[in-house]
Amino acid sequence: MSIDPRVASGLRDVPPSVMIPRERMLATFRETFASFGFVPIETPHIERMEVLTGKGAGSDEVLRQIFEVTNKGGEAGKLALRFDLTVPFARFVAKHVNELGTPFKRYAIGSVFRGERPAKGRFREFTQCDFDTVGTESAVADAETAQVIYASLTAAKIPAFTIAINNRKVLNGLLETIGVADQTARVLRVLDKLAKIGRDRVALELQYAEVSENLLDQFAAAQRIEVTNPQLAQELADSVERLGGLNESPFQTFMSREQADRLLDFVTSGRGGIDVLVPVETALRESESAMKGIENLRAIFDLLISAGVPESALKIDLSLARGLDYYTGVVFETTVNGWEQYGSISSGGRYDNLASLFTDRRLPGVGASIGLDRLLALMEEAGLLKGQSTTVPVLVANFPGVAPTVAFGLAARLRKAGIGAEVFPDPIQIGKQMGYGSTRGHKVAVIVGPDEAEKELFNLRDLATRQERKALPWAELERTVAEALGAGS
Amino acid sequence: MSIDPRVASGLRDVPPSVMIPRERMLATFRETFASFGFVPIETPHIERMEVLTGKGAGSDEVLRQIFEVTNKGGEAGKLALRFDLTVPFARFVAKHVNELGTPFKRYAIGSVFRGERPAKGRFREFTQCDFDTVGTESAVADAETAQVIYASLTAAKIPAFTIAINNRKVLNGLLETIGVADQTARVLRVLDKLAKIGRDRVALELQYAEVSENLLDQFAAAQRIEVTNPQLAQELADSVERLGGLNESPFQTFMSREQADRLLDFVTSGRGGIDVLVPVETALRESESAMKGIENLRAIFDLLISAGVPESALKIDLSLARGLDYYTGVVFETTVNGWEQYGSISSGGRYDNLASLFTDRRLPGVGASIGLDRLLALMEEAGLLKGQSTTVPVLVANFPGVAPTVAFGLAARLRKAGIGAEVFPDPIQIGKQMGYGSTRGHKVAVIVGPDEAEKELFNLRDLATRQERKALPWAELERTVAEALGAGS
Repeated sequence: MSIDPRVASGLRDVPPSVMIPRERMLATFRETFASFGFVPIETPHIERMEVLTGKGAGSDEVLRQIFEVTNKGGEAGKLALRFDLTVPFARFVAKHVNELGTPFKRYAIGSVFRGERPAKGRFREFTQCDFDTVGTESAVADAETAQVIYASLTAAKIPAFTIAINNRKVLNGLLETIGVADQTARVLRVLDKLAKIGRDRVALELQYAEVSENLLDQFAAAQRIEVTNPQLAQELADSVERLGGLNESPFQTFMSREQADRLLDFVTSGRGGIDVLVPVETALRESESAMKGIENLRAIFDLLISAGVPESALKIDLSLARGLDYYTGVVFETTVNGWEQYGSISSGGRYDNLASLFTDRRLPGVGASIGLDRLLALMEEAGLLKGQSTTVPVLVANFPGVAPTVAFGLAARLRKAGIGAEVFPDPIQIGKQMGYGSTRGHKVAVIVGPDEAEKELFNLRDLATRQERKALPWAELERTVAEALGAGS
Repeated sequence: MSIDPRVASGLRDVPPSVMIPRERMLATFRETFASFGFVPIETPHIERMEVLTGKGAGSDEVLRQIFEVTNKGGEAGKLALRFDLTVPFARFVAKHVNELGTPFKRYAIGSVFRGERPAKGRFREFTQCDFDTVGTESAVADAETAQVIYASLTAAKIPAFTIAINNRKVLNGLLETIGVADQTARVLRVLDKLAKIGRDRVALELQYAEVSENLLDQFAAAQRIEVTNPQLAQELADSVERLGGLNESPFQTFMSREQADRLLDFVTSGRGGIDVLVPVETALRESESAMKGIENLRAIFDLLISAGVPESALKIDLSLARGLDYYTGVVFETTVNGWEQYGSISSGGRYDNLASLFTDRRLPGVGASIGLDRLLALMEEAGLLKGQSTTVPVLVANFPGVAPTVAFGLAARLRKAGIGAEVFPDPIQIGKQMGYGSTRGHKVAVIVGPDEAEKELFNLRDLATRQERKALPWAELERTVAEALGAGS
């Protein structure tokens, strides 16, 4: 009896057809990050539990999804797999900041682990590509963050995309003005769902307590209705009450419908070019916070334009909240035009104090993360990935009856000339070797039969058209193959 | 109170000064593997326990070092972190071989985890770089494995190194001839320590049962003596007996001293160029197994020479055993000349059946692994790594009183011309900005003060010599900087 070769639930193997574009994309990101002076670091996949769960407060979500790690002789509950790259980076900076100095610009690419319920397209291990600048409050670092997103996605040949930019301080000023400044965290969480669930639903959730959010989902799903207006919501509330068992009413009112509408009118009108800030500046002129936020947004736009980032790739979006309430300044989200439903493929923002859990030293910073897996899924669905499963364009046949040193030597020459080449290992029937090449996606095959070997000649077959050029001299191998590939690609 | 930012025992952070050459080396390996048609795959860090521990037989060593993984709601003992990339590859091939077809050539680079006792230079998480060809028994694939080792290390600028090559079949023939064929696995394990512990000690361990190996270590350590001759060994044996508690005597004799000497004489004489095989061929001519092994070694040498691998980088070493008894044909080990004490930096070999635990389909193959961490440690000790901690040659100063858009725009131009450039984020004192650049290892700084900004000029400072060229025109920025870097590097 064999052991079943399946992977554990929620995990996956990545086959060559996905890995080849993935590696190419990662190489592009690494090069781009590095060209801005971001340096690579690596932290272990395993961290001490205490580091990941903070002071044990407010980390229920994290604790529920965390993978604990133990080994023989080790105590249970002490180690776990990282669930993001931010917490390990905070620990790293706290530990090493004195030797590294600031500003410190790092990138990190690696697997993170979350025990989420397995679902289509969602995995328990996935890759994050993070870059951050710590130790500065400069708008230069803010702008550079957006610039790196732009440069990385452009270099990776992602089709037209838009980087939406907001500043948390503008939102804060707005909430002050409306009179709900004490609800900031809650409002940010709800507002973050605007693109996903629509204005009506967000207005509803802004009015009512957070506890109702999940319940609304559950009841709406159970009753197959959509919560698009207050009346339906009330019906749901009644259902909840009939079932009982809740500590507080899920429909406690947190702000009036009027306040919610004012907030939503404001943020949805603040979408577009830098000019949308003009009326905002007037409306929020009493708020010092909002004025600082607006100044920062203007500085970022100026810097990005000076670096040649096209305005068409940028937009102000005052409704942009980002769920995480540790952002304190600029925030970014990036969507591929026409694929907004995929959500953001690169997000980030500025935080006041990265490593407060680990050090008393205040370390402000700004950074972003590129969602590699989501990006690849999008590109695959958009038909932008070639279904290629070879890394080389040339297959060198291993002709029956010809010394394998011939194919081996010719392939080595091609590689030396910078042309990737694979030698078929076994001298089987040539048709089968060509079939291998066609299936994998090799472009051409170099074939040397016994006659050719004797005369130092080769045949060159185009694996797509099956056309073959015969009796070409070995002396011109590199040039001939390079030309054929140049013409064929 | 802050949380202590230390890493868990036996783990480590990799700082930029190590990560920068490490990433460069990995990029080189990926490119080299790919140029031979090896395709990348990735498997999860977490595997089902059953996959990693096989049928539960003979895996005590593995079980002792394995990191178990559990999450809330998951059953204990079901999941674990991979301890190598070979077992996951075997599972991968068994699962996907029908869709992928053979021959299948893959590479994989990733972290593996072993709960070894922490020691200097030995970590519980380390990186493996594996490449394998499965589905063929061809000597072409064998030779290519050595060729890829050669090409990878050469491309990574590793100083002179030697790839030692043997074939397990030659050893098997020898053991038959000497009359100890039934002890193959044990002999291979002991012989593998030849470079490390020397001939006397190996002869001793060949004679006596395996159980004595660890005990010898323990007693030698406890008594601060070195086991270099049989007399000392006997004293140790007496100590063991005095302590009692062993199921079998650790000094049960497995072969005679004469047999051990004959074996050792033979394998140590079989070291050098391909010509060392001539007397071996005569001595073992009765052994069909040895003849096959010798034929394979000759074919591999012929192929490697035809591909331009210099003979000086290759040697036959009949004493080369590799500890793992699943190798069945050619085996490889690679040492850097003059750094043999570091052990092998790239090893591998041929196996008859990769995935037998997971499928009935027989999948012969050959592959090797490059020990990235060991290689970097060696290069660091040999002074071959620059202590660089920046990824860019140019620092663009952020001059107080000059709009940051100037520096930002000039840096963008340099990057567009393929020259990495970093903008200092804060307009602090220029001396401090230059200090940042010197410490990090930037080569030159571009400085634009208020006067220069007005006239569209810049100053270029060499950060090593502190010499500064003044009032250069912006229009010639890219060319001027490129020239300065070309001259300085």
